[in-house]
Amino acid sequence: MDFAAPLPGTQDLLFDAARRLRRCEAALLGVFERAGYAEVIPPSVEAADVFGAEAFRALDRSGRLLALRSDFTAQVARIAATRLAGFSPLRLHYRGSVVRRLGEGPVHENLQAGCELVGAAGPEADAEIVALAAASLQALGLEEARISLGSTGYFSALARAAGASEKLAAALIDEVDRKDLPTLRSLCEREVPAGAAREALLMLAQPPRPQTAARELLAKASALAPSEDALAALRRLGDVLERTDDRRLEVDLGEVRGLGYYTGIVFNLYAPGAPKAVGGGGRYDSLLGRFGDPRPAVGFSLDLDGLVAVARC
Amino acid sequence: MDFAAPLPGTQDLLFDAARRLRRCEAALLGVFERAGYAEVIPPSVEAADVFGAEAFRALDRSGRLLALRSDFTAQVARIAATRLAGFSPLRLHYRGSVVRRLGEGPVHENLQAGCELVGAAGPEADAEIVALAAASLQALGLEEARISLGSTGYFSALARAAGASEKLAAALIDEVDRKDLPTLRSLCEREVPAGAAREALLMLAQPPRPQTAARELLAKASALAPSEDALAALRRLGDVLERTDDRRLEVDLGEVRGLGYYTGIVFNLYAPGAPKAVGGGGRYDSLLGRFGDPRPAVGFSLDLDGLVAVARC
Repeated sequence: MDFAAPLPGTQDLLFDAARRLRRCEAALLGVFERAGYAEVIPPSVEAADVFGAEAFRALDRSGRLLALRSDFTAQVARIAATRLAGFSPLRLHYRGSVVRRLGEGPVHENLQAGCELVGAAGPEADAEIVALAAASLQALGLEEARISLGSTGYFSALARAAGASEKLAAALIDEVDRKDLPTLRSLCEREVPAGAAREALLMLAQPPRPQTAARELLAKASALAPSEDALAALRRLGDVLERTDDRRLEVDLGEVRGLGYYTGIVFNLYAPGAPKAVGGGGRYDSLLGRFGDPRPAVGFSLDLDGLVAVARC
Repeated sequence: MDFAAPLPGTQDLLFDAARRLRRCEAALLGVFERAGYAEVIPPSVEAADVFGAEAFRALDRSGRLLALRSDFTAQVARIAATRLAGFSPLRLHYRGSVVRRLGEGPVHENLQAGCELVGAAGPEADAEIVALAAASLQALGLEEARISLGSTGYFSALARAAGASEKLAAALIDEVDRKDLPTLRSLCEREVPAGAAREALLMLAQPPRPQTAARELLAKASALAPSEDALAALRRLGDVLERTDDRRLEVDLGEVRGLGYYTGIVFNLYAPGAPKAVGGGGRYDSLLGRFGDPRPAVGFSLDLDGLVAVARC
């Protein structure tokens, strides 16, 4: 037996590493609680159908399919939709570990913290969550971090206007995510009829704009908007922008990749020195309906492992 | 799908329940850190052979058998025996959740915190851990809690002296645990030859003695000790007793049930209002050897769910 190390994809946090994590957790907890969010601690194992396909699943002895927590948001949605169904709006925060299967590889464990605002549909709620993410970065001393704000609602409206199949939409997301304009252009020229929808899709590969220049980008996109839905999504982005005063914020219309349940604004958090996003969030107005209580919601989660590595707190 | 509740054996901690847990955790953390213990955060999933048969196991996609954490002590032993092999003594604390299979039922999740003192063999180390358990109870406002101290080493010595098979030893432990003197007596009369070992075994059903009266109990047991091993185990209990000044402490020679890896002193923690032990610990001098680094160790873990329900902090 090789006991020399924890499993690949997992880690032991010892001494200073544990202390750093707890210090970051305490800083975030302060931000969350001062903002009026209350903690929920869901179990680390649930019925498998609470989670998506990335969850690590196993049968218990009674033949029931269980899964390790792969996502806090789905658990918070379950709780909000059942035990807390009568309470609106709900401001909830959480922290703990999530375990996911990555492709055919071993499991991967990740420490997270986050917030969910349930039962609030307006741009004020979106802006509250974006501001809370900004305050979290601030509490960790990440002055130079960026909050890259986009809208899956906008992308969905463009894809619909372009008559894109699910497969084409996925291919478009891939190219947009890579900001690969030449490939995106040839894909669009091949698959999307010429017109406003195609031009709007090509704009998704544009570089992110700092808050000061984002109005101009939104105006340009609005001029090309191929549908009322697309226009409404852009207007919503403008509304959130207007309510948020943080120089970390930038607008990236190509910020379209995220968990499948996002329906409106979506954002990712980037910090200097971190190899990938240190967090992200968005609006998910359909998730609670899966648990029998259709209510709008918006939230974000932080990758604590990634943040602890770069935080100055 | 029934999403109305978490799985049986697991729970959602919401609002005040979460706050109470975090308050208790913080109180304990203060005790552990002031005593010079440093936190380790092991992963929630490990290779299955780190844990015992009670762990919930599943194959990953590469065919490797994984298990959810069912016991922190085994993980701390793995870490101490590998990455921290050169450092002695080690004072480590931890907290988090453990998941166990109970018989054929569903899994059971439990929140724990605890301490391990690795690389220290003497009664001072045993007494340090007992005192730390007492300080933990104190920090939670549990003035009336009891620390019931026994010795698996003593029981093993008696079982050896009585020539008991493993099966008989297990049956004896069952009756001792129930403090059922008549059944223990008839079992002993049937299976154990008359003599000092049998008389000593019958003494295990005696009620616990507060610290003030424990010396007398140990003297009586020593007079019956059927072997040098048994005498040494009793002497060790006396040494620990001498070094511990806490009115919560009592000696119960029948406190013999515990995880299979205990080799010396063993104790359970009881609190008024809690339906079962709220924690326990003991010496485990053989566990680190399983991970290739034979070193003595002693520690304890607390059942946070049980403690939070009765704590006054």
